[in-house]
Amino acid sequence: MATNAAGRIATLQTNDIDSYMTTLGRQARAAARETARATTAQKNAALLTIADVIDQRRDQLMTANQKDLAAGRQKGLDSAMLDRLELTPARIDNMIEGLRQVAELPDPVGEVTDLRYRPSGIQVGKMRVPLGVVGIIYESRPNVTCEAASLCLKSGNAVILRGGSEALHSNQAIAECIVIGLRAAGITEHAVQVVATTDRAAVGKLITMPEFVDVIVPRGGKSLIERISADARVPVIKHLDGNCHVYIDDRADLDKAVKVAVNAKTQRYGTCNTMESLLIAEGVAAAVLPALAAAYRAAGVELRGCEKTRALIDGVIAATEEDWGTEYLAPVLSIRIVADLDEALTHIARYSSAHTESIITEDYGRAQRFLREVDSSSVMVNASTRFADGFEYGLGAEIGISTDKLHARGPVGLEGLTSQKYIVLGDGHIRQ
Amino acid sequence: MATNAAGRIATLQTNDIDSYMTTLGRQARAAARETARATTAQKNAALLTIADVIDQRRDQLMTANQKDLAAGRQKGLDSAMLDRLELTPARIDNMIEGLRQVAELPDPVGEVTDLRYRPSGIQVGKMRVPLGVVGIIYESRPNVTCEAASLCLKSGNAVILRGGSEALHSNQAIAECIVIGLRAAGITEHAVQVVATTDRAAVGKLITMPEFVDVIVPRGGKSLIERISADARVPVIKHLDGNCHVYIDDRADLDKAVKVAVNAKTQRYGTCNTMESLLIAEGVAAAVLPALAAAYRAAGVELRGCEKTRALIDGVIAATEEDWGTEYLAPVLSIRIVADLDEALTHIARYSSAHTESIITEDYGRAQRFLREVDSSSVMVNASTRFADGFEYGLGAEIGISTDKLHARGPVGLEGLTSQKYIVLGDGHIRQ
Repeated sequence: MATNAAGRIATLQTNDIDSYMTTLGRQARAAARETARATTAQKNAALLTIADVIDQRRDQLMTANQKDLAAGRQKGLDSAMLDRLELTPARIDNMIEGLRQVAELPDPVGEVTDLRYRPSGIQVGKMRVPLGVVGIIYESRPNVTCEAASLCLKSGNAVILRGGSEALHSNQAIAECIVIGLRAAGITEHAVQVVATTDRAAVGKLITMPEFVDVIVPRGGKSLIERISADARVPVIKHLDGNCHVYIDDRADLDKAVKVAVNAKTQRYGTCNTMESLLIAEGVAAAVLPALAAAYRAAGVELRGCEKTRALIDGVIAATEEDWGTEYLAPVLSIRIVADLDEALTHIARYSSAHTESIITEDYGRAQRFLREVDSSSVMVNASTRFADGFEYGLGAEIGISTDKLHARGPVGLEGLTSQKYIVLGDGHIRQ
Repeated sequence: MATNAAGRIATLQTNDIDSYMTTLGRQARAAARETARATTAQKNAALLTIADVIDQRRDQLMTANQKDLAAGRQKGLDSAMLDRLELTPARIDNMIEGLRQVAELPDPVGEVTDLRYRPSGIQVGKMRVPLGVVGIIYESRPNVTCEAASLCLKSGNAVILRGGSEALHSNQAIAECIVIGLRAAGITEHAVQVVATTDRAAVGKLITMPEFVDVIVPRGGKSLIERISADARVPVIKHLDGNCHVYIDDRADLDKAVKVAVNAKTQRYGTCNTMESLLIAEGVAAAVLPALAAAYRAAGVELRGCEKTRALIDGVIAATEEDWGTEYLAPVLSIRIVADLDEALTHIARYSSAHTESIITEDYGRAQRFLREVDSSSVMVNASTRFADGFEYGLGAEIGISTDKLHARGPVGLEGLTSQKYIVLGDGHIRQ
């Protein structure tokens, strides 16, 4: 049975997929015991060596990537997809830089917190531990192979990576660099395994092996994630929509409001933390909407609004019920004028995807209420929703953004790839 | 559609179950927004009023319970089941005391931690928030109704409780007390809903409504939990086996070893944190086994052992492969002599259910290795496995013990019924 160890691309028959994935799973489970006890020095040495090997092998990586690009063009992939697939020198620089940054992050594994004596005489605390085996399923961008491997390794997990079929050669070339780094640090090469088949059955098997895989992180479009969540027999850290809201309160500083609401929409359109719906308190709508509308139009943003918005601003398309629930990921914005904070909270509770919402206000009590009552993974005051990001939050890197409520919410970094077990220290203590 | 509000026991036709459960779900989802923002004072007032009402209604509770007991006897329930079902005056005292204790616990909701300035100028931190709607599925013990409701309420969650059909009248009587307490504190009565039908289809629906239910906590036997996990479309906080180990190292203090190993097995037999398998380092086996065997026999514990154990002690039954993986929940113990810590760790990695394991040693390095390398929800040094318990750990109470790796491991108290969202405080900050 071929594994990724030598970067071989196995030509597997469909009826082999089951046993191939089982082999990867068993190897990952065994590797996880090793990675869990790997020292910080070992893990960092592996990361830095991988960075060096990637630096030395730039030509090989580009050659492998050219194969994928050529095949992609032949298959008729669109230009956005080909762009994501491409490994440019700058992107290789970013991969190297990312590995070095992860090496510098504090090791989360083994951290002991809350260790306290109990009346019985025992000490009880919590110790941070890896989750075990992580399965990552992603689409075209080959740099994810490197990012995901580095975060899983640093957090003491074994990982099985299943990239997009269009990036197979690039991913295998990156996998070879990873294997060299692992070996140099004395860590089993099964700590990071890249699935060496493009057969879709591999994904189906990966997400239904709870005996070998502890958690699945899908990275990709909503339909991929929904499909995986529906079929998985393993917990999934999900990132669905980012239908993010900014609410401009009638006690907002309107200069800040315009600055933030323009940034939240126009700084980038295709990202999950981009504002898709703007709520404005009736009391300040007439004062703030003209400046906002001018800025959005200058940036080429199409505006869709409620009746009250349309009465204040010309050329706004009538928003439908569907608009309030839509993540455009495009230069389109829906605008609704609401009576007050309560109506804004009700709108958000109904339409938000619980990703990121921000209030613009100078009112202390309203800021506190918004922070407390909005049930989203990131809740902000006087700040752009675009800040909802692992790097901006200081996590160093992120494996994804969770819109789930259990385990991890918001950007998931090293800590999200760990959990805490209880530890008890006694001296012959027994229960009475 | 009947709800539990007045404690009515609806006679529902099977084809109504779907819409009945949907109604409960929708009511719970709406209630969760309210409970999330209920003040600490409100929640505590509700808990204390429920305690008082239960105290005043002892006779009514006992009468309802007598109905269940009579029906149970007629159905031929065994005596253990009838015992669990019975509400004695002492058990009612415990329910009242439990409610008052939960009122005294610190409110986890709204706790802000790790709030720090980032280079961009924003402050980023985490705020503890309720999970939303919790579904609890449990068997005969009616006091769980009260315990689970109190923990969910204090942690700001709405809850749907589905108790055993044999306890229906008792649970409805307790539900009436809860509704009175909620009303008195100005909290919606839909915050705690007790399913008023014994139809099994209600469970099937409850665990497949992700739009209304955020997490399921099953409390009961392994087969119940496995069935629910297999069918659920909602995350499940699982508690499967407790196949717990004690390892007596050859650097153990043998007096402590005997004390702990006897307590871990004999203090109670039917609990999940009871030791089921004892591992002994070869170097001290001859020195410690006779005293241990004598103590176990005095307590009436049947011993099953490996060949080496049987060579040292008479009358030990030969342990089979199956024994190593078995949670006896009975006065039976499997014993294995291992070469050293490494062999003990390998045995535990293979057979343990990842619940609770303890090492007995005076060696610092080995204690550290055991703590780090054993991947169980509780890992102990020189302490009885029987300490793995929410009260002993200072959680105040527990909704269950998780053997999962994601979200919560070990005893799950108020904190396990919450998660953390990110909060961002700015002053007009935008992303560059």
